[in-house]
Amino acid sequence: MKFKCEKSKLQEAISIAQKAVTGKSSMPILQGLLLIAEQDQITIIGSDIDLSIETKLEAEVIETGKIVVDSKLFGDIIRKLPNSNIEISSIDDNSIKLICEKSNFTLVHMNPDDFPSLPSIDEEMIFSIEQKTLKNMIKSTIFAIAQDESRPILTGVLFEVKDKKVNLVALDGYRLAFRSEPIDNDNSMSAVIPGKTLNEVVKILQDDGVVNITFTSNHILINLEKTKIISRLLEGEFIKYTSIIPEEHNLRVDVKRGELLNCIERASLVGKDGNTSLIKLDIEDDYMVITSNSQLGKVREELNIILQGEKLQIAFNSKYLIDLLKIIEEEEIYMDFSSSVTPCLVKSKENNNYTYLILPVRLLNS
Amino acid sequence: MKFKCEKSKLQEAISIAQKAVTGKSSMPILQGLLLIAEQDQITIIGSDIDLSIETKLEAEVIETGKIVVDSKLFGDIIRKLPNSNIEISSIDDNSIKLICEKSNFTLVHMNPDDFPSLPSIDEEMIFSIEQKTLKNMIKSTIFAIAQDESRPILTGVLFEVKDKKVNLVALDGYRLAFRSEPIDNDNSMSAVIPGKTLNEVVKILQDDGVVNITFTSNHILINLEKTKIISRLLEGEFIKYTSIIPEEHNLRVDVKRGELLNCIERASLVGKDGNTSLIKLDIEDDYMVITSNSQLGKVREELNIILQGEKLQIAFNSKYLIDLLKIIEEEEIYMDFSSSVTPCLVKSKENNNYTYLILPVRLLNS
Repeated sequence: MKFKCEKSKLQEAISIAQKAVTGKSSMPILQGLLLIAEQDQITIIGSDIDLSIETKLEAEVIETGKIVVDSKLFGDIIRKLPNSNIEISSIDDNSIKLICEKSNFTLVHMNPDDFPSLPSIDEEMIFSIEQKTLKNMIKSTIFAIAQDESRPILTGVLFEVKDKKVNLVALDGYRLAFRSEPIDNDNSMSAVIPGKTLNEVVKILQDDGVVNITFTSNHILINLEKTKIISRLLEGEFIKYTSIIPEEHNLRVDVKRGELLNCIERASLVGKDGNTSLIKLDIEDDYMVITSNSQLGKVREELNIILQGEKLQIAFNSKYLIDLLKIIEEEEIYMDFSSSVTPCLVKSKENNNYTYLILPVRLLNS
Repeated sequence: MKFKCEKSKLQEAISIAQKAVTGKSSMPILQGLLLIAEQDQITIIGSDIDLSIETKLEAEVIETGKIVVDSKLFGDIIRKLPNSNIEISSIDDNSIKLICEKSNFTLVHMNPDDFPSLPSIDEEMIFSIEQKTLKNMIKSTIFAIAQDESRPILTGVLFEVKDKKVNLVALDGYRLAFRSEPIDNDNSMSAVIPGKTLNEVVKILQDDGVVNITFTSNHILINLEKTKIISRLLEGEFIKYTSIIPEEHNLRVDVKRGELLNCIERASLVGKDGNTSLIKLDIEDDYMVITSNSQLGKVREELNIILQGEKLQIAFNSKYLIDLLKIIEEEEIYMDFSSSVTPCLVKSKENNNYTYLILPVRLLNS
């Protein structure tokens, strides 16, 4: 194997493929990156079995071949080299030479035959979407996935394609995040993508260009121009989320997102008892009172609202409200309530593409 | 106690006094900040006994008094409040009320009588120096203090005043950092300040204004305009550093700092064996070859130098060279060597105020 390429392009490709290398695998080969030199291009693949990322860059390939290099060491070396041309060539069966200006490295490499092969996926595209849109959709739902593994299916995000829409849904038993976008496509399917995969996908997605998405029974293929991301799906049935989202309400509160967020953040400071901070909302005619207390002291916050319907007292874990109020971009939001023990629905007044739901905490006196 | 003040001024003062609150003390009172309301001003004090910081802010004091509030909780609340006026008043013997616009807190406080009193220091100024100069002096020496506690005196920086100069010296047995600045003062003294103190002092020092420094037999007082920092000194004799700095050399190498740093950083990647990375320098007539190797591979870097004197082979722990090359600001530096087993001296060609020294590693074949 022998090739020449630009340092900056190689560095960029490595940083993409490295996102699949977790360093947590017990298989040493998975701490490596597979480099394949073919006609005019280098393919770099990183994998932790569950997630694999393949990316390509232009290169002057003098001799084809493949090797596996240590992901961290190779990436660190390339990053520290001057912005110039790099020449990489095999010396013998287990080492390569790397030359860049006056820097001269000899590096031991691993056997490319030990590297796991990527799942083969029939690239029949299911749908196509703007990269920026998909990135926003993931960011605005992934915070609501379950953090503990007791119900593995909830550690992923549901991708659902139907009725010319793609819906993303995450829920953890205490809250639900739903985000929908129209697509120009009549397919219909659903699958649950691991949250770990999507955390890396959002780092790779750009603000322009489209992405093609394909599903098999076990995998998702996210195909960007030069980069393919392949991830295993989570097995099992996702919760029928549509039955959870209430369609009716007894009262609606119009409120400014930023003001509400600030009040709840302050109130949660005093109520902090371990990680959960209980806050109580007293919804009155044209204002809301937020209170919290603990052995540290107590707090009362008040803010203006517009109320349609009856007054209500309801309590929440502040973390869940803070999380979603930080994710919503619009200032004008509304909250729909039915009672102090049924979910609260939070939506933007301007943007109908998402719905957030959080469960209240039952108070002793309610 | 009752006072009114601006949120932004209170927040700034808290963040200064908090730098002395480590949260590591077994005395709960030391997790607090002492607030003293006197005529037209509030004094805030944080302390972990070894280090105490006292700072003042203007306030409208309606009733004098003092309290101790939890440093983290109080700081977090003030930070999250809107930029407005804050009113704080005692309700009873163990709680205060805090009002800011529509936010209303009741907070439990601790007994101010339990808060340790500051060491009394006779403010006879020893020397005065620009804040910016002192900040630079500390930053350019503190990296060389000993990290382990086996010789406690080396975990501090020597402050030495003599011959109308102030010298700062740090050394850890492998390297030495010396920095000197002229002062307009005939006093003479020396003391060793804990590194932990100086790490906080650099965060408080500004880019303009002066600072007055006083020493007692046990303490240093660093007096900024509104803020006083009092720290215990380290006990014991500092090493006679002047006898370590060689006055003669057999060869001098002129080299560009940035180029040398890049070569050594790259070479250290391959040589990495735990935390220490051995690199070898071959100093030739007009170039230097840097090599390193491990079971991962090997590296050869070459860079241009100007040599006065004999050729030399010498080896170093790369970390020590990298640390000092990152601290030096000037590009034109020189390195003086006597042999492969004696210290190397590194200095700027333009700026004579500092001297760095590092010990070589003895090679098996030398």
